[in-house]
Amino acid sequence: MILTVTLNTALDVTYAVPALVPHSSHRVGEMSERPGGKGLNVARVLSALGHETVVTGFVGGSTGAVLRELLAETGHAGTGASAAGAGPSAEAGAGSSAEAGTAAMAPPPRDALVTVAGNTRRTLAVVDRSTGDTTQFNEPGPQVSAGEWAAFLRTYEDLLSGADAVALCGSLPPGVHVGAYAELVRLARTAGVPVLLDTSGEPLRRGIAARPDLVKPNADELAQLTGAREPLRAAHDARRHGAHSVIASLGADGMLAVTPDGAWRASPPAAVQGNPTGAGDSAVAGLLSGLAEGLSWPDRLTRAVALSTATVLAPAAGEFDGPAYAGLLPRVGVERLAPAA
Amino acid sequence: MILTVTLNTALDVTYAVPALVPHSSHRVGEMSERPGGKGLNVARVLSALGHETVVTGFVGGSTGAVLRELLAETGHAGTGASAAGAGPSAEAGAGSSAEAGTAAMAPPPRDALVTVAGNTRRTLAVVDRSTGDTTQFNEPGPQVSAGEWAAFLRTYEDLLSGADAVALCGSLPPGVHVGAYAELVRLARTAGVPVLLDTSGEPLRRGIAARPDLVKPNADELAQLTGAREPLRAAHDARRHGAHSVIASLGADGMLAVTPDGAWRASPPAAVQGNPTGAGDSAVAGLLSGLAEGLSWPDRLTRAVALSTATVLAPAAGEFDGPAYAGLLPRVGVERLAPAA
Repeated sequence: MILTVTLNTALDVTYAVPALVPHSSHRVGEMSERPGGKGLNVARVLSALGHETVVTGFVGGSTGAVLRELLAETGHAGTGASAAGAGPSAEAGAGSSAEAGTAAMAPPPRDALVTVAGNTRRTLAVVDRSTGDTTQFNEPGPQVSAGEWAAFLRTYEDLLSGADAVALCGSLPPGVHVGAYAELVRLARTAGVPVLLDTSGEPLRRGIAARPDLVKPNADELAQLTGAREPLRAAHDARRHGAHSVIASLGADGMLAVTPDGAWRASPPAAVQGNPTGAGDSAVAGLLSGLAEGLSWPDRLTRAVALSTATVLAPAAGEFDGPAYAGLLPRVGVERLAPAA
Repeated sequence: MILTVTLNTALDVTYAVPALVPHSSHRVGEMSERPGGKGLNVARVLSALGHETVVTGFVGGSTGAVLRELLAETGHAGTGASAAGAGPSAEAGAGSSAEAGTAAMAPPPRDALVTVAGNTRRTLAVVDRSTGDTTQFNEPGPQVSAGEWAAFLRTYEDLLSGADAVALCGSLPPGVHVGAYAELVRLARTAGVPVLLDTSGEPLRRGIAARPDLVKPNADELAQLTGAREPLRAAHDARRHGAHSVIASLGADGMLAVTPDGAWRASPPAAVQGNPTGAGDSAVAGLLSGLAEGLSWPDRLTRAVALSTATVLAPAAGEFDGPAYAGLLPRVGVERLAPAA
């Protein structure tokens, strides 16, 4: 089982409007809602890949109730990835194109969220149909009490005992201490469970000091963390700060990995046009599933780049295009980099 | 008891952001939620004025559940109008200033909403703190089935038997026929209950043909309805179409009334700065409460103009400033107009 932690879950709402005109009134043409927060997005992709997945974190109030209801409905068939040759057996170079459509129907991520008194936040994406651009509004999230944090820690430790890997994802809700991820990294390491950390700012800085197995910053987050603008140098710096492996996502340029076993750069076969929302979460799912399956670094990176590229290509934000994923797997380029000076 | 009908209720959500920048991401600083839809706003003001009020219409889904919960909490104390000298006894020229603060604690409007399978809509107002401007997003509302409409009609007829007056307010949700307000006007007239209609477009046009006691269009709605740009001429036209009395709201210029008893113009003592959201709903509450109390037309108009002006002055959108209301009552100017040619 793979565990994902989303401390600040969200109900992701999308409004489509013909054109966004500030200080005017808009009739919303179409709206959609789905469970959100990075760890929930990662879990949805893991589930579509055929992995048994459990989600924990905080949920509460009427928004939280809607989130849980939608989460229970998240099946393989409902994700838009149902045509994917996307099971754990669909490896890079292992005949994945031929296997498209054969993936098992995975169950939805299992809900092990911890209930809080406050109301789960919403995020609102207003899509301007005239330009395709998105304007985003993020609510802050519920206040989490010390008692609620303690209840979460008990749940987390119970779940770790059955986990093959754990991902700690996203921002912290109000009331959770800034060293929270460092605490969760240490508990995972004590339990012997490989841990991936995907956050930013001070929570990332403190989390890295607790020596997680993987961190997956983007280029901006990495630069903010280390002060170095050049991603390869910054990734080496982040390793020195405590991360065993650093996987930097470089947008359309793919990913850069600096690990104890060497450094690699993985690139999609060509630049693609589409919606990058959720591409980073798909990359985390690719890395984490590859880790749980014992894949080599080049195969993990191949999967992560193919998944994130197939996410940009999917019509719905945050979903991945299954056939595109299967087609991309054999076409991702992975280059080994020279050891650092 | 005064009945208000809101077929397309809404949960009104407000987000405050430092500045609205299209195609960027915003952290929402403050958010608030309150029961909305014109008839619910009217009921809240009637309740603050000390009137026993019942609300009906449609409500459903998780948003509807939140709306009902907040509606039950709507007390006089919670409206921001708790300091109002705003009871039925606080008449124009009847020492209302001296009575400020003495209004009875009114109970919240009684919930007689009819449950539907669909989800009640939200409206979102994004307030740009740098300019004070608001950008509005309105969801369409739930699909209402024929069976749900029939259930509503039974509730409506039951409620009419105990009503002193009824207000029919706002837009129609999807699935409700365009002649819905005409049907509701006829039922009220059959029951002998005075009926006020506050809507726009084709539902207003058809509703007027059913001969409501009052309509309260704004200048734009009136022009759209009759083709006449000049409000006095347009109001006379609307009467010829079937409305017994036409009260046109003219924004900062006050209100114009054309009735079987004569025509009047009522004006606030001075132009005021503030948020006009809900001013029209407060005017409806003023007219309806004056009708239920048997006030003269000049006194009804005085109350409507004082309430809508006090709503513009209140810090919270849609609330009215109680002391300002009491202070405005003796200062509203009412001028009798010459009979139409």
